[in-house]
Amino acid sequence: MPDDVAADKLAVLECLSDYCYAIDFLDCDALGDLFTEDAVLHFSLGGVGREDITVSGGTAIGDYFRDVLPQFGAAAPKHPLTNHVVRVDGTRASSRSYLATGAGLYAGEYERSATGWRLSRLTVTYFARPTRGSR
Amino acid sequence: MPDDVAADKLAVLECLSDYCYAIDFLDCDALGDLFTEDAVLHFSLGGVGREDITVSGGTAIGDYFRDVLPQFGAAAPKHPLTNHVVRVDGTRASSRSYLATGAGLYAGEYERSATGWRLSRLTVTYFARPTRGSR
Amino acid sequence: MPDDVAADKLAVLECLSDYCYAIDFLDCDALGDLFTEDAVLHFSLGGVGREDITVSGGTAIGDYFRDVLPQFGAAAPKHPLTNHVVRVDGTRASSRSYLATGAGLYAGEYERSATGWRLSRLTVTYFARPTRGSR
Repeated sequence: MPDDVAADKLAVLECLSDYCYAIDFLDCDALGDLFTEDAVLHFSLGGVGREDITVSGGTAIGDYFRDVLPQFGAAAPKHPLTNHVVRVDGTRASSRSYLATGAGLYAGEYERSATGWRLSRLTVTYFARPTRGSR
Repeated sequence: MPDDVAADKLAVLECLSDYCYAIDFLDCDALGDLFTEDAVLHFSLGGVGREDITVSGGTAIGDYFRDVLPQFGAAAPKHPLTNHVVRVDGTRASSRSYLATGAGLYAGEYERSATGWRLSRLTVTYFARPTRGSR
Repeated sequence: MPDDVAADKLAVLECLSDYCYAIDFLDCDALGDLFTEDAVLHFSLGGVGREDITVSGGTAIGDYFRDVLPQFGAAAPKHPLTNHVVRVDGTRASSRSYLATGAGLYAGEYERSATGWRLSRLTVTYFARPTRGSR
């Protein structure tokens, strides 16, 4: 692994963290810098018995959150992500992470731009809250 | 981002993790190596209806935890931190992180010393436990 | 810290994350690539009033999980790990991490192989679920 891959991996994870800060602290304007223009946001909700949601385009993603975030309550850290595995391949990268509550799995795809890494696709798969494993 | 920024970012996060291990496992002596002599610890508690707490000076921070930790129960992992974003600027750095329970936001400022990074300021902002976001 | 230590630290953490994905998503076949042949898995369970469990050998570890995982419910993110501190020393490394639920502490030992880092020992110490600290 060349040395700068470590820096890229951390930058990719910071893009993902910035996304969480934006939606958890109701800063929808910040979302514009985090997604590519043709980005796709996909919530896979079959595991919790609901219809999937797909939003296409960076501008539409900002509008989507501007619409739905108010119903999720006050600003607070609501999306703690852990267990990151990042792959970097030139100007593209991918990540997968746990939602620490156990309710979700995040899969990100990224493109490197002149100003840093941006999400080109974010797929969030939701799970019925598991019984905690004991091991 | 130069290559060694990645190493610095990880070292900064390890300083923050070491702080959590120290307070969660009641090892107050370890705190002396983690804060600068003139460090400030600030708990912003307005969000949970309490008065803020500020402790100034590395020695006073150790004494503060020696005093309060016994009331927080037995040694155990109580402060899981996630969603780190770290900035490094020469001999200084900053971080922000989630408390994974959703109850807090950690903002750290660091100085590089001969023996590694140390916290010069740690601000912990507490939130009323949020209703979990469903997205 | 030489530059490639950052890349090694991230690779070590990815090995640990891959272990979590394998056991949480019931992919026992993946475990074979994550442990050394003579690896030891140890669950320290005295803190929760149970007998310790020790499994010796990479093949036995795979068999162990193949046997026990079905009782821990459907595939879902059950083991979110945080607060990582990694030490790298040539072809060996060690890690410690929190289970974000507060119920466990993970201590890993790793060996670098031709195909990447592998766990040579994983010790998981369980704690009675703590009362959440308020600081």
